[in-house]
Amino acid sequence: MPKPGMLDFINKAKWDAWNAIGSLPKETARKNYVDLVSSLSPSSESSGRVDKEPGSESVVITSEDGITKIMLNRPAQKNAITIQMYQEILSALEATSKDDNSVITVLTGNGDYYSSGNDLTNFTNLPPGGIEEVAKTGSILLRDFVDCFIDFPKPLIAVVNGPAVGIAVTLLGLFDAVYASDRATFHTPFTQLGQTAEGCSSYTFPKIMGPAKAIEMLIFGKKLTAHEACAQGLVTEVFPDSTFQKEVWARLKAYAKLPPNAMRISKELIRHNEKEKLHAVNAEESTALQGRWLSEECMNAIINFLSRKSKL
Amino acid sequence: MPKPGMLDFINKAKWDAWNAIGSLPKETARKNYVDLVSSLSPSSESSGRVDKEPGSESVVITSEDGITKIMLNRPAQKNAITIQMYQEILSALEATSKDDNSVITVLTGNGDYYSSGNDLTNFTNLPPGGIEEVAKTGSILLRDFVDCFIDFPKPLIAVVNGPAVGIAVTLLGLFDAVYASDRATFHTPFTQLGQTAEGCSSYTFPKIMGPAKAIEMLIFGKKLTAHEACAQGLVTEVFPDSTFQKEVWARLKAYAKLPPNAMRISKELIRHNEKEKLHAVNAEESTALQGRWLSEECMNAIINFLSRKSKL
Amino acid sequence: MPKPGMLDFINKAKWDAWNAIGSLPKETARKNYVDLVSSLSPSSESSGRVDKEPGSESVVITSEDGITKIMLNRPAQKNAITIQMYQEILSALEATSKDDNSVITVLTGNGDYYSSGNDLTNFTNLPPGGIEEVAKTGSILLRDFVDCFIDFPKPLIAVVNGPAVGIAVTLLGLFDAVYASDRATFHTPFTQLGQTAEGCSSYTFPKIMGPAKAIEMLIFGKKLTAHEACAQGLVTEVFPDSTFQKEVWARLKAYAKLPPNAMRISKELIRHNEKEKLHAVNAEESTALQGRWLSEECMNAIINFLSRKSKL
Repeated sequence: MPKPGMLDFINKAKWDAWNAIGSLPKETARKNYVDLVSSLSPSSESSGRVDKEPGSESVVITSEDGITKIMLNRPAQKNAITIQMYQEILSALEATSKDDNSVITVLTGNGDYYSSGNDLTNFTNLPPGGIEEVAKTGSILLRDFVDCFIDFPKPLIAVVNGPAVGIAVTLLGLFDAVYASDRATFHTPFTQLGQTAEGCSSYTFPKIMGPAKAIEMLIFGKKLTAHEACAQGLVTEVFPDSTFQKEVWARLKAYAKLPPNAMRISKELIRHNEKEKLHAVNAEESTALQGRWLSEECMNAIINFLSRKSKL
Repeated sequence: MPKPGMLDFINKAKWDAWNAIGSLPKETARKNYVDLVSSLSPSSESSGRVDKEPGSESVVITSEDGITKIMLNRPAQKNAITIQMYQEILSALEATSKDDNSVITVLTGNGDYYSSGNDLTNFTNLPPGGIEEVAKTGSILLRDFVDCFIDFPKPLIAVVNGPAVGIAVTLLGLFDAVYASDRATFHTPFTQLGQTAEGCSSYTFPKIMGPAKAIEMLIFGKKLTAHEACAQGLVTEVFPDSTFQKEVWARLKAYAKLPPNAMRISKELIRHNEKEKLHAVNAEESTALQGRWLSEECMNAIINFLSRKSKL
Repeated sequence: MPKPGMLDFINKAKWDAWNAIGSLPKETARKNYVDLVSSLSPSSESSGRVDKEPGSESVVITSEDGITKIMLNRPAQKNAITIQMYQEILSALEATSKDDNSVITVLTGNGDYYSSGNDLTNFTNLPPGGIEEVAKTGSILLRDFVDCFIDFPKPLIAVVNGPAVGIAVTLLGLFDAVYASDRATFHTPFTQLGQTAEGCSSYTFPKIMGPAKAIEMLIFGKKLTAHEACAQGLVTEVFPDSTFQKEVWARLKAYAKLPPNAMRISKELIRHNEKEKLHAVNAEESTALQGRWLSEECMNAIINFLSRKSKL
């Protein structure tokens, strides 16, 4: 079987995976191969062109008592974020930033996970321009998405109901408060996937927890418990999972009644000096990732990851 | 009763408070109203024009063994800081910065409190220029006061003997060491009073403890225990209240015997790179507060606060 | 006995030490004096001109499994760093930064200590230019040495096997991960020696742990335990001494197998924005120390320190 061109990412994945598992027993190899290809196939969610039934939206936005809640709603896929979902969150943030009735904005997840981060199938639905086009549009989308968090003018709160992975973790450095269930974990396995840090974490994480802790997360992929993340300043407070939703939402309702202008102006004082820096960091990180996505190191790492996963 | 003009702050307070308690039983309303007006009246301390008997000074300055001690001395008013006291502390810092016999400078409080922060009656002694003049001169005084801490050239140490509120907390980010009794608490209810962060805390607090912890204090008004403040880097070390004074002063006496030039030059290395930034932050915070003090949101928040307090 | 000129540092040390111990019993004084002079004498290691037998090198460099290990190897002198050793570490870092087979670089110590820091005898081997020349060349060497850590392009890890003092502590702010035995301590008694902070610690330490904690270390010389240093973000993780080497090296071997380009680019994203600042801080700190080394305050402090030490 000849080695295919670099551009044909799915075929390359199939080819390398097949080769990688060539030494396994025939039945195991076949099963792994099927699992791998299946996991690499675009999910129906990510196509974004089918009409949704009510309640089936991937991102559910509700408003009550001055609180806008943006809830990731793909529990069966651990709230992995598809391209469509990035765009929906971005639109929701833009709308709520201009809504005078919205005092506090919350991001949370439905089900067991907060979010498993970027949906890797975002890379596999290849357009005519191939992997280069995927990398370029992905980099632009990532940059626009993160910019929106940098500029958000009102209190922005993460209600981390369960495990968080990748960009769901790195973005937390741009939130104004992070409340976590004690079931939550915080994992950024960028290097393991041949990728590099994003969400401004290359700047915010060392600032929050010092380089010795930040680099173990961002470069070596150390997974933190909720209590560890709290001790290191990434999380504001941890709650027992049994009372998490009740305690956090009671607190948020109280916060939403505070003088909104005082909160907005304090946030502006705290954040505006960093905005220029954060936008520059975001641009650098997005450009670096674009390069990573086109690298053989990254492709091999993703394939190895999916291949190992399929063996579990 | 017609609504009075915005400028007449005391009258507005009276009017709104009266209206706010209009639905209470007549006797309760009358008592609350009297309490409120009384709490809004300028205290005799803040007039600053009567001659003091020895020992009755609001700020007591002493020097011994190379240590200059600046002690807030209004224990009955929880060491709330009047306009006169701001000026006295400022003068004391300027004098001790030039005194070759003074190696270490300490700020502390007499009695149960470290300091309850800005004396709210500073806003009620209206000059001919009305609330605009109060806001303008208050903003200038605040800026000069904080600038003096930014530029202080020798080790500056806070001995936090009890609860600290508002500017007594935010200034701690500019101290070189902060020793706290385990009775101390740290509370910055700016938003609750319609106000915004000062003392460079919009810059120093996120830097010290990360935004997720800093914003819960500065925007949402979370009160920290001494041990929490220590875990988050705002406090150097916590001592049991029973041995607090003895242990801290023994340590300070030892520090005051260290080579003074080495300490001064190390402090210069550590602090000088941030001075320009800190002065800019201080100017922004002071300007923001001037605007806040003139806002209806702030006025209503202060009146609500005092009204609630008077009901306790 | 006439007071000698400032330039003759060893003689001054002898003279002042002799005077300082003049009031002790004669036998004690004689012993202290001999100890002091002996401790001030240049060690044979620092002359750097004798051929070494295999295994007797002061710095041992080995490479295995993608890991370059730089081990300080003067256990009998607590791995105090001589001028020659600074140069050898610097050369090793430059070589390994260009070696494609080296993925991760580790600095550690042989024996009980990680390193007791700068060998004070570096100051006593007076060249014809006297103490001025020692101060000038020392300042230049320090700056070059620290610059090399600032610019190091790959993951750099400290395996802190025991107590660390002075520059062995301050440099940790430039490492990407710091693993410590629970026997390790972290001590920067700069002021006690009339000196000032280096290794970029005047910038990195306040950033990592906040000024209240950083200044107690850098100005007041507070010694931290491994667990304290970890709580404050200087150390990534602490291990029981009994399993320290085994656990850490297993982890490092796993890290060395991760995609190297992803690690290098993530480190570049995390560190490059600070490089200009760090080089400027390093230059300031080195210049300040050059001035300190020529000051009477510093000379007296070193002599007092050695004199007290000799009395133990």
